[in-house]
Amino acid sequence: MKLTRILSIGTALSLIALPALAQEADVTPPNGDIGYIFTTFMFLVTGFLVMWMGAGFSMLEAGLVRQKNVTMQLMKNVALFAIAAIMYYLVGYNLMYPGDGWTIVGVLGAFAPAVLEPVGLAETATDLTYASVGSDFYFQLMFCATTASIVSGTLAERIKLWPFLIFTVILTALIYPIQASWKWGGGFLDASFGFQDFAGSTVVHSVGGWAALAGALILGPRLGKFGKDGKVHPMPGSNLTLATLGTFILWLGWFGFNGGSQLYMDTAGNVADISRIFANTNTAAAGGAIAALILTQLLYKKPDITMVLNGALAGLVSITAEPLTPGLGAATLIGAVGGVLVVFAVPMLDKLKIDDVVGAIPVHLVCGIWGTLAVVLTNPVATLGGQLISIVIVGVFVFVVSAIVWGILKATMGIRVSEEDEINGLDMAELGMEAYPEFSKG
Amino acid sequence: MKLTRILSIGTALSLIALPALAQEADVTPPNGDIGYIFTTFMFLVTGFLVMWMGAGFSMLEAGLVRQKNVTMQLMKNVALFAIAAIMYYLVGYNLMYPGDGWTIVGVLGAFAPAVLEPVGLAETATDLTYASVGSDFYFQLMFCATTASIVSGTLAERIKLWPFLIFTVILTALIYPIQASWKWGGGFLDASFGFQDFAGSTVVHSVGGWAALAGALILGPRLGKFGKDGKVHPMPGSNLTLATLGTFILWLGWFGFNGGSQLYMDTAGNVADISRIFANTNTAAAGGAIAALILTQLLYKKPDITMVLNGALAGLVSITAEPLTPGLGAATLIGAVGGVLVVFAVPMLDKLKIDDVVGAIPVHLVCGIWGTLAVVLTNPVATLGGQLISIVIVGVFVFVVSAIVWGILKATMGIRVSEEDEINGLDMAELGMEAYPEFSKG
Amino acid sequence: MKLTRILSIGTALSLIALPALAQEADVTPPNGDIGYIFTTFMFLVTGFLVMWMGAGFSMLEAGLVRQKNVTMQLMKNVALFAIAAIMYYLVGYNLMYPGDGWTIVGVLGAFAPAVLEPVGLAETATDLTYASVGSDFYFQLMFCATTASIVSGTLAERIKLWPFLIFTVILTALIYPIQASWKWGGGFLDASFGFQDFAGSTVVHSVGGWAALAGALILGPRLGKFGKDGKVHPMPGSNLTLATLGTFILWLGWFGFNGGSQLYMDTAGNVADISRIFANTNTAAAGGAIAALILTQLLYKKPDITMVLNGALAGLVSITAEPLTPGLGAATLIGAVGGVLVVFAVPMLDKLKIDDVVGAIPVHLVCGIWGTLAVVLTNPVATLGGQLISIVIVGVFVFVVSAIVWGILKATMGIRVSEEDEINGLDMAELGMEAYPEFSKG
Repeated sequence: MKLTRILSIGTALSLIALPALAQEADVTPPNGDIGYIFTTFMFLVTGFLVMWMGAGFSMLEAGLVRQKNVTMQLMKNVALFAIAAIMYYLVGYNLMYPGDGWTIVGVLGAFAPAVLEPVGLAETATDLTYASVGSDFYFQLMFCATTASIVSGTLAERIKLWPFLIFTVILTALIYPIQASWKWGGGFLDASFGFQDFAGSTVVHSVGGWAALAGALILGPRLGKFGKDGKVHPMPGSNLTLATLGTFILWLGWFGFNGGSQLYMDTAGNVADISRIFANTNTAAAGGAIAALILTQLLYKKPDITMVLNGALAGLVSITAEPLTPGLGAATLIGAVGGVLVVFAVPMLDKLKIDDVVGAIPVHLVCGIWGTLAVVLTNPVATLGGQLISIVIVGVFVFVVSAIVWGILKATMGIRVSEEDEINGLDMAELGMEAYPEFSKG
Repeated sequence: MKLTRILSIGTALSLIALPALAQEADVTPPNGDIGYIFTTFMFLVTGFLVMWMGAGFSMLEAGLVRQKNVTMQLMKNVALFAIAAIMYYLVGYNLMYPGDGWTIVGVLGAFAPAVLEPVGLAETATDLTYASVGSDFYFQLMFCATTASIVSGTLAERIKLWPFLIFTVILTALIYPIQASWKWGGGFLDASFGFQDFAGSTVVHSVGGWAALAGALILGPRLGKFGKDGKVHPMPGSNLTLATLGTFILWLGWFGFNGGSQLYMDTAGNVADISRIFANTNTAAAGGAIAALILTQLLYKKPDITMVLNGALAGLVSITAEPLTPGLGAATLIGAVGGVLVVFAVPMLDKLKIDDVVGAIPVHLVCGIWGTLAVVLTNPVATLGGQLISIVIVGVFVFVVSAIVWGILKATMGIRVSEEDEINGLDMAELGMEAYPEFSKG
Repeated sequence: MKLTRILSIGTALSLIALPALAQEADVTPPNGDIGYIFTTFMFLVTGFLVMWMGAGFSMLEAGLVRQKNVTMQLMKNVALFAIAAIMYYLVGYNLMYPGDGWTIVGVLGAFAPAVLEPVGLAETATDLTYASVGSDFYFQLMFCATTASIVSGTLAERIKLWPFLIFTVILTALIYPIQASWKWGGGFLDASFGFQDFAGSTVVHSVGGWAALAGALILGPRLGKFGKDGKVHPMPGSNLTLATLGTFILWLGWFGFNGGSQLYMDTAGNVADISRIFANTNTAAAGGAIAALILTQLLYKKPDITMVLNGALAGLVSITAEPLTPGLGAATLIGAVGGVLVVFAVPMLDKLKIDDVVGAIPVHLVCGIWGTLAVVLTNPVATLGGQLISIVIVGVFVFVVSAIVWGILKATMGIRVSEEDEINGLDMAELGMEAYPEFSKG
């Protein structure tokens, strides 16, 4: 099942984008079973960092919603992470790496649950693949879960629990893996368009953003968010320490997200590339945060911490499509542009009367697109055309399918809580439990 | 001091449970000092993940107690972690790995403090043990600390600080290491009963659970928890975001807990096994969470987030005795059964008028037993008899010794705060400091 | 740029302090590109642990300030981390490792931004340096950011945002790197005085402490902190769960801080040393926490959790100058002395009317000095004279330069908010946003 992927990586060997691999071809295999151990352990370490991002999204979102909807946001985040784990295992992983090419047969074959290597694998250096299937599965699963996490923030404070979870099932079993296979499973975006998306500005972040956008349009804004007089009513998050903690967690997890996407740590060249990626990822986040800090100071006279936090995340999303080829200066600037984009995109969404509670669409969709385009600035393999067409194809697919699913859910079981429940808060209405029962409200 | 342990592992080489090791025997030593570096670093990485679980228990418990007892819960968790570090070093580690067999002499020898290898260890490949003693000590210490963490939650909101800390001294210096030596120190459970407990469903989790149960029975329930009319008075936790954060921390830490228990990362087979363990651990947690989510929806019409969080932890405890041999499907189901058990065990404890503030007994004791029995489902080396007798022996030992210690503490210094102090909260009474002094109470 | 550093390490090869390196000299290079991969990956893992300390400081400080100043504290911590990332890249890193000796030329050369190795580095074992420059940059950057984090806590609740951030620019671009080059860049403290500071009790922690002390003296205490009658008015932190979480995060991050400072993981000896460091670091924290617990119980009849948390941190700072040569017992005692020092230093600062909101001066400066002196207890290479003179030189330099910078900032833009803003809280005055807008105040 990993063969196609390895082959597709093989075809990239002569490209600058993955030059470390080119060197491996000369020494085949570079460090035998030692290399296998290195790469596998690298997947486990970077994988647990990406897993930790699930906690980051939970805290960020719990901090940015109002007190009466906090428990609901926690519930959605824990549940979606668990659902992703099971659906990606049952369906998604095999769908994403169809093995014998991305055909209908491959898709159907996907329903054979993923089989990890047997206990006590007795491989010798000669028949080793590049890493343990289990570690690859673990790492890739966390990307799928991240995609689902992005959606939950946008739709907060008015969506019912179960329709959201059903959408998550479809997103993690089908929507994410199908489009991811087009690039990372050796599909047509990779093969025909030369699409470059190192760690998923498009494949992960914009996908979450498109699914969230479709949901936000169909679900509608929160009651009272957009006044009849055209005024936007701010609804400040209840706990900025949690939001800050969540941002730090995501910042930390992103080292795994981008670093692990090097996919190999078997040679000095590969580990040096991972080092560059760590440094670039960090500086892009810094660039995004500083840009938002200065810009909100200039625009609003007072810097806005929620913008600074989202600026850091915007920097991270922006560098995700190409964290390897930029130098530190270029990476800082790519991140800074992301920070600027977020500061302007948030009020623009408000003007469009699209209600995105945590700013996930500006961060993950807008900057996901920006980051994917920015690849052409530093990676000569990428073409603006190839990047654009891939962004559009993925966007249209995810948006349309998501809209259909949201539409069906709305028509059948309903996706929105009643007006009364929304005013009283989803915590008591849907879950019967407050997050802070003893703290009195101001 | 590690010799016995290595020997006992040696005797397991022909068993399916640790087949990766069997292969090593053929190539002796598989990767020389490279293997030593891999395994040692693996212990350090997985060890710091387990250390992080200390923060997880702190946040989980601080979130599940009422506002007036939060500082106390934080204090107990920080202090117990520090006590475990010192007592396990002074006594526990040598007691657990007595070297020349588990004899009285070995026990007495335990009081010679653990000596790590000298600075700048000059081992060559030929005289290398499998990993640095320092890394093994660090990793094993964190298991001891975890055991102590389990106890603190059950007894929250009414126990005095110092008796609890004295119990912790005895638990980490004597109770945990003695029983752990029976299995992991090459003792009789391992040698005579073929007891299988990969990462400690029994040796760690049920031990914490038994000690907590003994304490809960002797300490009695919180005032007002069980009404005279037989009604159970719910006392909701004050901060569900913290409880959720704590659960995510524990989920993350558990990859270290189970993964590091492979004990070797010197071959491709071993690292592939660790990968399987990571994937299985994750899916078991997901299974437990989803099972609790669906079950509480069905039973109570509204899903209960505290049950979902405990369901995830239940899944983690359940897979801990055997995270290697199951496939992903079996691991998910083993975890799901754990989630179901928790949903039924919590009200059952209430019926028995046993007051367990955070649900530690359902999670760690009930699912610890379940997980230990479930080993026989996928690991042919385990026998139902061997598992059962070991569960009983460990349980009787820990419960009886704990009850004696709690009884002595109760008789001498008293273990429970005064009625007035309990009503006013332990924070002001015992520590003179509130966790949230500026937040007014509802 | 790393050559000087490597040479200076080379001169240490015959010393006991780094005896593992001595062995490497015999086998040159010990494990070739495998060693390169090990050391590089070690830097990445320990580096992300140190990065995580940024979250730790944020949570600790947000928990220890009053509700009305929480957003400001969060903003400062996120912004300083981003500033450190950019300034250390633009100026600091090259300034700290000037390459051809620490000369004026070297300093000027520093303004050539750090260049990481090219993508797909094709080094062979013969021309490999010991680790990827990118990984070293990433690791060292996090130390620079930590230094800045220390300052923000002391000056909380009355300093303006922008002057603080401008100071951070100067601290991370110039003050920290210049003095760090004296020891770690092969400068005169290393060469002429034999100064021993393994992971930075002086170079990082006391530097943060001196900069904070200069700021505290020039900024003055908070309004009402010191009454005219000589009484000290306690101003309890608003959220002790956050403070505890922050302490656990720092405790975890410190394994990376001290462990990674071994700088090599290419041999069995080096990884065994890292293991010792992990174990010693943990037990020193435990010693500090327990010492503060017992001492505050004896002194005040009730143990003080903020002292216990600071005691753990004090233990960590104390062991940082020499986490390798002590045995576990000595490490515990070194940490315990740190815990005792904090308990006495906090009220002493109050007597001197120096207002340190979070206790950063007792923890990082007092224990930084203690830890640096304590090196002579276990490392025969260190001399009391060499340690003392180095502490004084670094202290005078950092204190004087910081005082000048603070003085200029005060004279030009002002560093303190107005009396009214201080009373109303910095959150509304400086940022227009509360951290907990819905929680009513008690």
